[in-house]
Amino acid sequence: MARPDAIRRHNLRLLLDQVHRDGELTRAQLTNRLKMSRSTIGALVAELADLGLVAERVPTGGDRAGRPSHVVGPRADGPYVVAVDVDITDLTMAAVGIGGHVLGRYAVTTGSAPGTPKAVARHVVSAVRELGTQVPPGAWPVAIGVSVPGTVTRRTGMVEFAPNLNWQHEPVGAILGAAAPGGLPVSIGNDADLAVLVEHLRGNARGTDDVIYLMGRSGVGAGFIMNGQPLTGRDGYAGEVGHNVVDVSGPQCHCGKFGCIETYIGDSALLILAGRHGVASADNVAAVFSDAINGDAVAASAVRTVADALGRTIAGLVNILNPERVVLGGSLAHVHAFAPGEIVASIQRHAMGPARDNVHLFSSAFTDDASLLGAAELAFATLLDDPIAVRPN
Amino acid sequence: MARPDAIRRHNLRLLLDQVHRDGELTRAQLTNRLKMSRSTIGALVAELADLGLVAERVPTGGDRAGRPSHVVGPRADGPYVVAVDVDITDLTMAAVGIGGHVLGRYAVTTGSAPGTPKAVARHVVSAVRELGTQVPPGAWPVAIGVSVPGTVTRRTGMVEFAPNLNWQHEPVGAILGAAAPGGLPVSIGNDADLAVLVEHLRGNARGTDDVIYLMGRSGVGAGFIMNGQPLTGRDGYAGEVGHNVVDVSGPQCHCGKFGCIETYIGDSALLILAGRHGVASADNVAAVFSDAINGDAVAASAVRTVADALGRTIAGLVNILNPERVVLGGSLAHVHAFAPGEIVASIQRHAMGPARDNVHLFSSAFTDDASLLGAAELAFATLLDDPIAVRPN
Repeated sequence: MARPDAIRRHNLRLLLDQVHRDGELTRAQLTNRLKMSRSTIGALVAELADLGLVAERVPTGGDRAGRPSHVVGPRADGPYVVAVDVDITDLTMAAVGIGGHVLGRYAVTTGSAPGTPKAVARHVVSAVRELGTQVPPGAWPVAIGVSVPGTVTRRTGMVEFAPNLNWQHEPVGAILGAAAPGGLPVSIGNDADLAVLVEHLRGNARGTDDVIYLMGRSGVGAGFIMNGQPLTGRDGYAGEVGHNVVDVSGPQCHCGKFGCIETYIGDSALLILAGRHGVASADNVAAVFSDAINGDAVAASAVRTVADALGRTIAGLVNILNPERVVLGGSLAHVHAFAPGEIVASIQRHAMGPARDNVHLFSSAFTDDASLLGAAELAFATLLDDPIAVRPN
Repeated sequence: MARPDAIRRHNLRLLLDQVHRDGELTRAQLTNRLKMSRSTIGALVAELADLGLVAERVPTGGDRAGRPSHVVGPRADGPYVVAVDVDITDLTMAAVGIGGHVLGRYAVTTGSAPGTPKAVARHVVSAVRELGTQVPPGAWPVAIGVSVPGTVTRRTGMVEFAPNLNWQHEPVGAILGAAAPGGLPVSIGNDADLAVLVEHLRGNARGTDDVIYLMGRSGVGAGFIMNGQPLTGRDGYAGEVGHNVVDVSGPQCHCGKFGCIETYIGDSALLILAGRHGVASADNVAAVFSDAINGDAVAASAVRTVADALGRTIAGLVNILNPERVVLGGSLAHVHAFAPGEIVASIQRHAMGPARDNVHLFSSAFTDDASLLGAAELAFATLLDDPIAVRPN
């Protein structure tokens, strides 16, 4: 049997979850959603306000009779997390408050790979300081969440294999943890796994139980929500679709095999198809899409070719997992925007009947910020799990 | 807050689950496993015994001092389910009691495909009668569970697509339900989805949370347990790996595409590789394996070729799902028995590092009965969920 204290903590968590997911809500909405009495909601809101997590305001104006319901929302000067998105040519960091509000940003263009985990740690330390000057006075950092394009053992913070960063079995969690100002706890996750979290919470997979997020950057990875829960596999390595072989007589991949999915739909593949040289930086990739939109026939054909291979990749995952939605992120969102028909036609050709006809395609609601905002969710997990345990220092 | 009645039902379910999973257990073991008092266990056992679900016996003999702990086990003359495994050339039916005990069998060799759902229903009706004569006097049937090699909408009992049976959008649940003697409820599931259930409950995936069951018969399908729960997708169609393309320049599949997984590792593929003609019946497939074991070089080479392709198929699933175990069933269990080294070497070549090194391969613990016993679990679900609700009629 649950003790009263455990029930109160559970109820605080439920209420904070609502505000974190949706931002401002009236007391009446909270009463309705949580099926609790008005007095219970009042007491819970008061306790969360005492903890510095939410603030109440009385709405002004309005022409309805009676007392307006108080509005409960995140406190702007409450706790925030530092989210870090490690990508190949760019390191993006942000202060993110309850409700997923971005309170400040700090980005570093690294040009090619971002260097060693220690080099990344130095940038993160600078970011924590700089972001501290951008947030409202009184706001306090509670944790750091990091997105990495590679396989991560979350429990230990070990990055096992991130070929595009040239990292292998690197104790990134320990290195960042040792460097983190004020002993902020550090959590690390895979970029696509984190992207699907926030897409499910507030984006284009909200309210659905079975979702595949397919992320295209230098590499290609997938994140899954199945049965309403993150599916990360035994060790957290699930979603490494990029090196599945679709054609043994295809182009050689940097991993040594031939015909990997990455050689068809990754950023480098797009640049090669478009006849471009140079690294797969955000700018170079964006140029292909804008040229395609502006009528460059070679660029347009390159995007369409990627769209066809993307459809085949999605078809394989649809056959295996029968998702309700597939959300496309990174450059794959731009492929979807330019050539949705090619993707759908390819899925129709390659996927099995019934699962094929029930899947819906979306672009990410957060464009290039999905992994960054997902990293923020990872960092918020402890606070959301037990709002009482995290107090301002 | 849970009411006492709900708690009692919950506790009855927990105790029956233990006996169903493990068969006979002493009261002392049950007390220890369920962390309940001896008197609570005693009361629950008495209630389950009154319901006709379990029986107690006092063990005889033994040389230890003190009163021996009573042994609680399934009642031989208790409820049973009728399990049906629809395969291409064989229709296998069994009466299965609590604990997964097979109390009787009834098989029909259909030669080629088993015909329409109505033809299958006639065999099932005969089986229910015949099996009723094989079970202990007093035992009573509670439900029918059916395994089908195809995509099934479980909620409606609709078989959407079973290409090897030549069934498409067939209301098999309704047809069997209308024919079922005594109004027995009928549930239907996909063969690999059902096989992984029983493998997880009592077989070679017991105690693991992330399991892929790969079933090879005429077709190839997968069943998944992930995060400790069945993963069946939005509609129940997950696991249709057989028509994922591994080589666009490969052989043509009966589905019209080229290079589907089924054209490399299904029973028909094995027969073609071994230079055999005739349908992929259980006997014809078994002959290839026994010839390989007895030194037939062509048969051995055919099995090794299938083993290599099987490793590549497993590698793709390991990259995507990072399972702890992969269990091989149907003819794939025989491939595993003959050529385990070829499978492992192929997985090593094709899967990504960290997930690849943490996966373990097993053959099914139930050989050709996995889907049949899984169908029994499907039929038992209602009784196990609420032991009080199902009484003898």
